[in-house]
Amino acid sequence: MAPKLAAQARREFEPPEAEAGPEGALLDLSHLSSIVGYPLRRAQMAVFEDFARRFQPLDLTPAQYSTLSTIGDNPGRNQSEIAAALGILRPNFVAMMDELERRGLAERTRSGVDRRSNALALTPTGRELLTRARVVQGEQEAAIEDILGRGEREALVEALRKLATLA
Amino acid sequence: MAPKLAAQARREFEPPEAEAGPEGALLDLSHLSSIVGYPLRRAQMAVFEDFARRFQPLDLTPAQYSTLSTIGDNPGRNQSEIAAALGILRPNFVAMMDELERRGLAERTRSGVDRRSNALALTPTGRELLTRARVVQGEQEAAIEDILGRGEREALVEALRKLATLA
Repeated sequence: MAPKLAAQARREFEPPEAEAGPEGALLDLSHLSSIVGYPLRRAQMAVFEDFARRFQPLDLTPAQYSTLSTIGDNPGRNQSEIAAALGILRPNFVAMMDELERRGLAERTRSGVDRRSNALALTPTGRELLTRARVVQGEQEAAIEDILGRGEREALVEALRKLATLA
Repeated sequence: MAPKLAAQARREFEPPEAEAGPEGALLDLSHLSSIVGYPLRRAQMAVFEDFARRFQPLDLTPAQYSTLSTIGDNPGRNQSEIAAALGILRPNFVAMMDELERRGLAERTRSGVDRRSNALALTPTGRELLTRARVVQGEQEAAIEDILGRGEREALVEALRKLATLA
């Protein structure tokens, strides 16, 4: 927009009291706070940042942790099944399995022609890392329960499960 | 891992019943479902996918919508304040403002030496788009309330706000 039009828009659409507002004063976020998507995203980011900090010594991302955990509880299932259950796109999942295999944490245990049909399993190293990771995860759950209390935490998980059916 | 070691790991760590499990049978996801981060991420992805579908005709991402909405409710505030309030990193926020300005939706209304000190405002076009976007957002909220009911929806938002203090 040309400077002249910009100046016009300023006069028309900026209420004078906003100019007088002291820098650093609280913003009106009431609209965003009243819709579900915004606090949902802020909470998800906070929990994932907290996860990243706790899991940094183990060098695991949330997706890697979910994958190790699901393979550990479901040995012998194939890549397509695990990827679908976790809602991870297959190309991304294959790349992650490559990385987990490179680190000696998980393996594709049948080498068929179609890599998608390979059954997955943890290695001894992967199993040991999963055990340590679940202890760390338990610490995060305890921190969350400190904030919410047990009842509200359980109600939250239940509401989130229902909400996941939206899409 | 060498093939021989891989075969050994297979023998040691894969229970035979897993091999016999029929393909497509339900996976055990009980561990993931019991921790907050997993259903939180699944719900956030579902809500954002639903948002993307609804907002596709308006060509707005969630971050763009949040930004237009916050500028609309807080005209004259500067880039640093809006970016900080929304938890968006400044380089990302500057790039998004460039895009909103290019589309004629928002403007930096003072051209000081330091772009960060520019006050932000919506253009008439931006204000009109925000009005339409809030109607669409209201439709998403109604769909969420259909799933959760009003009381559970409000309890969810409250729990999410508390959870955002974790990081």
